[in-house]
Amino acid sequence: MTTSGVVRVRFVLSYDGKDFAGWATQPDQRTVQGCVEGALTRLLGSSEPARLVVAGRTDAGVHARAQVAHCDIAAQAWERLDEKNSGRSASVLTRKLNSLLPDDIAIHHTDIAPPGFDARFSAQARHYRYRVHDRIYARDPLVRGHVMFHDRPLDVDTLNDASARLLGLRDFAAFCKPRHGATTIRTLMDFTWTRDTHTGILDAHVVADAFCHSMVRSLVGAVLAVGDGRRDLAWLTEVLSQNSRSSEVRVAPAHGLVLEVVDYPVDDQLSARASATRAKRTLN
Amino acid sequence: MTTSGVVRVRFVLSYDGKDFAGWATQPDQRTVQGCVEGALTRLLGSSEPARLVVAGRTDAGVHARAQVAHCDIAAQAWERLDEKNSGRSASVLTRKLNSLLPDDIAIHHTDIAPPGFDARFSAQARHYRYRVHDRIYARDPLVRGHVMFHDRPLDVDTLNDASARLLGLRDFAAFCKPRHGATTIRTLMDFTWTRDTHTGILDAHVVADAFCHSMVRSLVGAVLAVGDGRRDLAWLTEVLSQNSRSSEVRVAPAHGLVLEVVDYPVDDQLSARASATRAKRTLN
Repeated sequence: MTTSGVVRVRFVLSYDGKDFAGWATQPDQRTVQGCVEGALTRLLGSSEPARLVVAGRTDAGVHARAQVAHCDIAAQAWERLDEKNSGRSASVLTRKLNSLLPDDIAIHHTDIAPPGFDARFSAQARHYRYRVHDRIYARDPLVRGHVMFHDRPLDVDTLNDASARLLGLRDFAAFCKPRHGATTIRTLMDFTWTRDTHTGILDAHVVADAFCHSMVRSLVGAVLAVGDGRRDLAWLTEVLSQNSRSSEVRVAPAHGLVLEVVDYPVDDQLSARASATRAKRTLN
Repeated sequence: MTTSGVVRVRFVLSYDGKDFAGWATQPDQRTVQGCVEGALTRLLGSSEPARLVVAGRTDAGVHARAQVAHCDIAAQAWERLDEKNSGRSASVLTRKLNSLLPDDIAIHHTDIAPPGFDARFSAQARHYRYRVHDRIYARDPLVRGHVMFHDRPLDVDTLNDASARLLGLRDFAAFCKPRHGATTIRTLMDFTWTRDTHTGILDAHVVADAFCHSMVRSLVGAVLAVGDGRRDLAWLTEVLSQNSRSSEVRVAPAHGLVLEVVDYPVDDQLSARASATRAKRTLN
């Protein structure tokens, strides 16, 4: 529970990305991290500002359901909170954070993280969903904040054929904004499309061990070009073989994308997983 | 098709009510009717402004899916449109309206109304849904525009018991904003609640032949007070017996309410239904 005077607290939260400049704190910008850290710092009343580590650093405009983050809180501050709240610090923190936070963020759950847990490095897989509507007649204005409207008809079988070509352990350099010293090798575990028969909305499920910057939206953008007939599978294969970012891939708009779930191993493997991830990321 | 030089055209449309001062045109206000009539008038290029008649005159902030309206268009203007578009005026109108309208309105379907059709008076029933979330931990910020957050836990069985008391042909004066010369007698056909096991969202299905002003939201407000334990069934029965608007009923917020569907009889009974409705409304 407490190591070297800190308690690692785990948070599960959702947000509507529309009015945020993404997850990560940036000067003079409204960010999810900034809002949650501000509220936490205020609640803990500590001199040190709270710092969050997150599973998926979502870009500006990208949404999240069941995003996971952790924060190391000084054991003293935690004990103070526990004394005031008869040992129910975690649930009190959830309630108080929700009352301080704006209505585009919801904290679902707070608890003390199991030993070895790291929101970023212990994660095994990130599940994203991208939602598209391609029928203007059936468009529902109530969901336009998280369903992208595409003005050409899409074929779900073609989308699935194209997406299947991208699966596996590969270098996704063609789909990544380059970052110095960071690997672009990832394992794409799932990339499948379904169309809701009632609403007509197309829903892509995209799962990987981790994603590099703008990767999900680039993968979706590339596959959409095949799904609406502007490009073919040969083009996609050619793009995939490129070893730097392809200018031919249109990044799909942020508002269709939601980080849905983050997978972690069972508790006794959290630490091993974190070490393995750290080693892999440094290798490159 | 054309009677006395006009073609009656039927529209099915959806909108996000958030940024509208309701359906009905009002001076210096952004309204759904104002937007659609403006776009129609522009497309038809006629000197007379287009005038819409609607099935459900939704209040400020109330949403609609599959709202129905009609517009009498001068036969000459319609024929001009048909000549330009090889007889496909209706589908061309849908497409062009969507391209002119803002993204909080979607036109789903346009056709020539069957004989005797009146969007308002031929309607047999209006189906509304009211969505509520009572668990702050499970709240999804992405749907907060059309799901009302209620800060006390609600019991779905109690909600259903209370709602069932209101069914039938009754004078709903206690739940209506009074309007001179208008009846408050309505038939409430369905008022049932279900809770989605996955999201936890409570969904009320409210159906009546017609609703008077603010009636759905007053019914929902009254039943919520019973469902969270602030009031009991005896109170509800007492309210129902009042013959003027009850100050004890809190009108539920507009943003949880969606007009979902409007029912019409089969085509050969449209005219008879419209006459019957007109007679009933005038009686009072």
